[in-house]
Amino acid sequence: MSRPIPRSSATPPAPGPSPTGALRLSDGLLERRNRAFGAGAALFYETPLHIVRGEGAWLFDVDGRRYVDMYNNVPCVGHGNPRVAEAIGRQQGTLNVHSRYLHEDIIRLAERVAGLHGDFAQSVIFSCSGTEANEIALRMARMATGRRGILCTDATYHGNTELVGAMSGLPAGSERSPGFRSFPFPQTFRTPEPGLSGAALTEAYLVGLDRAMDALEASGDGIAALIVCSILANEGLPDLPPGFMGRAAERVRARGGLIIADEVQSGYGRTGQWWGYQVTGFTPDIVVTGKPMGNGVPLAATTASRALVETFRSRTRYFNTFASSPLQAAAGHAVLDEIESRDLLANAGRVGAFLKAELKARVGRWPGVADARGCGLFLGVEMVGPDGAPDLAAARAVCNGLKDRGFLTSNAGAFNNVVKIRPPLVFSQADAEAFLPAFDATLDTLHGAG
Amino acid sequence: MSRPIPRSSATPPAPGPSPTGALRLSDGLLERRNRAFGAGAALFYETPLHIVRGEGAWLFDVDGRRYVDMYNNVPCVGHGNPRVAEAIGRQQGTLNVHSRYLHEDIIRLAERVAGLHGDFAQSVIFSCSGTEANEIALRMARMATGRRGILCTDATYHGNTELVGAMSGLPAGSERSPGFRSFPFPQTFRTPEPGLSGAALTEAYLVGLDRAMDALEASGDGIAALIVCSILANEGLPDLPPGFMGRAAERVRARGGLIIADEVQSGYGRTGQWWGYQVTGFTPDIVVTGKPMGNGVPLAATTASRALVETFRSRTRYFNTFASSPLQAAAGHAVLDEIESRDLLANAGRVGAFLKAELKARVGRWPGVADARGCGLFLGVEMVGPDGAPDLAAARAVCNGLKDRGFLTSNAGAFNNVVKIRPPLVFSQADAEAFLPAFDATLDTLHGAG
Repeated sequence: MSRPIPRSSATPPAPGPSPTGALRLSDGLLERRNRAFGAGAALFYETPLHIVRGEGAWLFDVDGRRYVDMYNNVPCVGHGNPRVAEAIGRQQGTLNVHSRYLHEDIIRLAERVAGLHGDFAQSVIFSCSGTEANEIALRMARMATGRRGILCTDATYHGNTELVGAMSGLPAGSERSPGFRSFPFPQTFRTPEPGLSGAALTEAYLVGLDRAMDALEASGDGIAALIVCSILANEGLPDLPPGFMGRAAERVRARGGLIIADEVQSGYGRTGQWWGYQVTGFTPDIVVTGKPMGNGVPLAATTASRALVETFRSRTRYFNTFASSPLQAAAGHAVLDEIESRDLLANAGRVGAFLKAELKARVGRWPGVADARGCGLFLGVEMVGPDGAPDLAAARAVCNGLKDRGFLTSNAGAFNNVVKIRPPLVFSQADAEAFLPAFDATLDTLHGAG
Repeated sequence: MSRPIPRSSATPPAPGPSPTGALRLSDGLLERRNRAFGAGAALFYETPLHIVRGEGAWLFDVDGRRYVDMYNNVPCVGHGNPRVAEAIGRQQGTLNVHSRYLHEDIIRLAERVAGLHGDFAQSVIFSCSGTEANEIALRMARMATGRRGILCTDATYHGNTELVGAMSGLPAGSERSPGFRSFPFPQTFRTPEPGLSGAALTEAYLVGLDRAMDALEASGDGIAALIVCSILANEGLPDLPPGFMGRAAERVRARGGLIIADEVQSGYGRTGQWWGYQVTGFTPDIVVTGKPMGNGVPLAATTASRALVETFRSRTRYFNTFASSPLQAAAGHAVLDEIESRDLLANAGRVGAFLKAELKARVGRWPGVADARGCGLFLGVEMVGPDGAPDLAAARAVCNGLKDRGFLTSNAGAFNNVVKIRPPLVFSQADAEAFLPAFDATLDTLHGAG
């Protein structure tokens, strides 16, 4: 049953420049934060935002100014979603305890999550963060294969523990992280040789993967797994050479390795389908999910065959105090209920396709706007300099300019020069239509035409 | 302001044997769980409990049977605590977003948590689990010292990532986990040589620590830190030889190492004081907290000096999607408000002292009950066989017998032969008084006198 995305009934201040031109920081909040968190805890934007309230795809700052959130995938069913809020308040007031007692709702959530995949998945290990879930996936693959070698791309990020963080910014060919080898991530925008395209481009990237596999075998690590974000989100959402992901998976499996799909960003309807791997065309053995699963309640999952999960459990006796809890169950069911009852996959597909087409039509309209790509409600706009090189400063300027106009984005990608558009799944057609003039005005200003 | 611990106004079924003698598992829940989680996901008790509701220190199963919870430290301010439930429901309905926008409540929570320590602590890194927080602490110590060697006890558990899990069950002298060395945990119950006590016993254990430090220096790792649960909870809550912790900390510092207090179990009022290190007499450089901080909402923290935290942040750009969120802030403040306004530290000290004295009076009353020890609402009863050896089977039998009588405990310790008593901080004098006849009846039955 499809239902329209509800909009707020209130009429908050429209997006537009802040009346004061800067945030109210008179309360010394930034200084307090620098002491309480330690300086260096990341903040978005040249002038940080002080957000106090959210509703659907909108956020409101301390001055009551409205922003359209085009960045946050975690609150996938909307900021302040009442179904999620009510469910977790009620469950916390009833029971929230660890998983060494029987509790039906969390078992049903595991069944529901596994059921969103094909036959390869029956069992789930819940945890509290994508990092924890990726760590479980890597260790599971190593235990199941008896080998250590993990393949990843050269511009990935899968989390922040020592094990998972070993893959962050790992250049192809580097031996910096023993047990890990990266390969150049595939893309059609910047190719290894000029003019390379189609099947030849696919082959060129597969050679890079082969080299990484050769290195892991030569080192004695062998091939345990390929781990990859199904849509290469942190790499910058590249358009892929034809058939790359399916061919890569085949080649890894031919050498005995497993395929881990990191669906923390690409899953849960983000692309207009449940899973990114459906879009890019491969079947994983292990799936990692996180961010949107609980609409902000810490909830992540590693999903695989019962055999893989039981291998991991028997070897580790894994237990996670806060995971598989009734609270996680309440949040997880409420999110899936919202996604399903409001048909948010269709919304992501429909609004995303509209926005992508509009952005593609803008490529080249300003010299810095070199590419627009992505899928569903996950889009990227590649900013380049006059020489075609990645232009990080321009991407930042676009994000700051859009923020001043009431639209929140950020920059990402291998060179951080891609404007990242990844709104809650409730982001509406009207939100998208409101965004376009702000985008145009921001680019006009940036190019001296505003 | 001290207030009495409220009891439920309802009159649920009193503790006692289940009318059916077994749980209602007719719905096939266990079989569903074995598939959905994979077999091997841990469950407590010979016949698992199917818990559906909690209130204060009480839990209720699917048949409406009441259990006094004497195991769970996470719901420290009580199962179903309405202040926590209301706070998180309200916050989730208002705003729950990541930490790259300014948000006052989470800054205030960091200030509040740091303020519960002495001058050594100013800054906090929030995360979602004790594992994550311990991982941060270990990496922080390594970055700050430029050395790799971590000291831990030979019967500890600090978490489940590859890095943190490297310390689980690491025998003294073992080189199994490079960069880690363990030393024999100090205790007065089983001494390295018969008759050793007092200062001589302290010295004997310090020699064990010295050996581990020597090994780390010989291997080239050097001494980055000692990590230790401030009351040695997983080791079995041993009574310590005089001055051990302070002396150990001095010796580690003399070789340039930092002291990490894992307060995941011992902190937040558990002992009747805020921190376990106040009880065992040392001052840490880094404190890790977790379990009780959010009453079940995933929330953990690594607290240290601003300099240590900023070293870690500058080296890692650490970011955790679900941490430092408004939801964590809401839960964290509600828990501290409850602890403070209900004076739960005093309750833990008072009820814990009563229960400890009663248990101590029972040592030797049955031949298997060899020791009773602990502090505040964290007590252990050591079960031994006729030869004085640890009796795991007896500890399990006591836990199962107590469960059948409506009191929930578990077994822990280096040999898993210690009955672990660690109720919510709202556990009352009446709960303690109700427990004692059940304990006596369980031991009578176990020893054939029942």
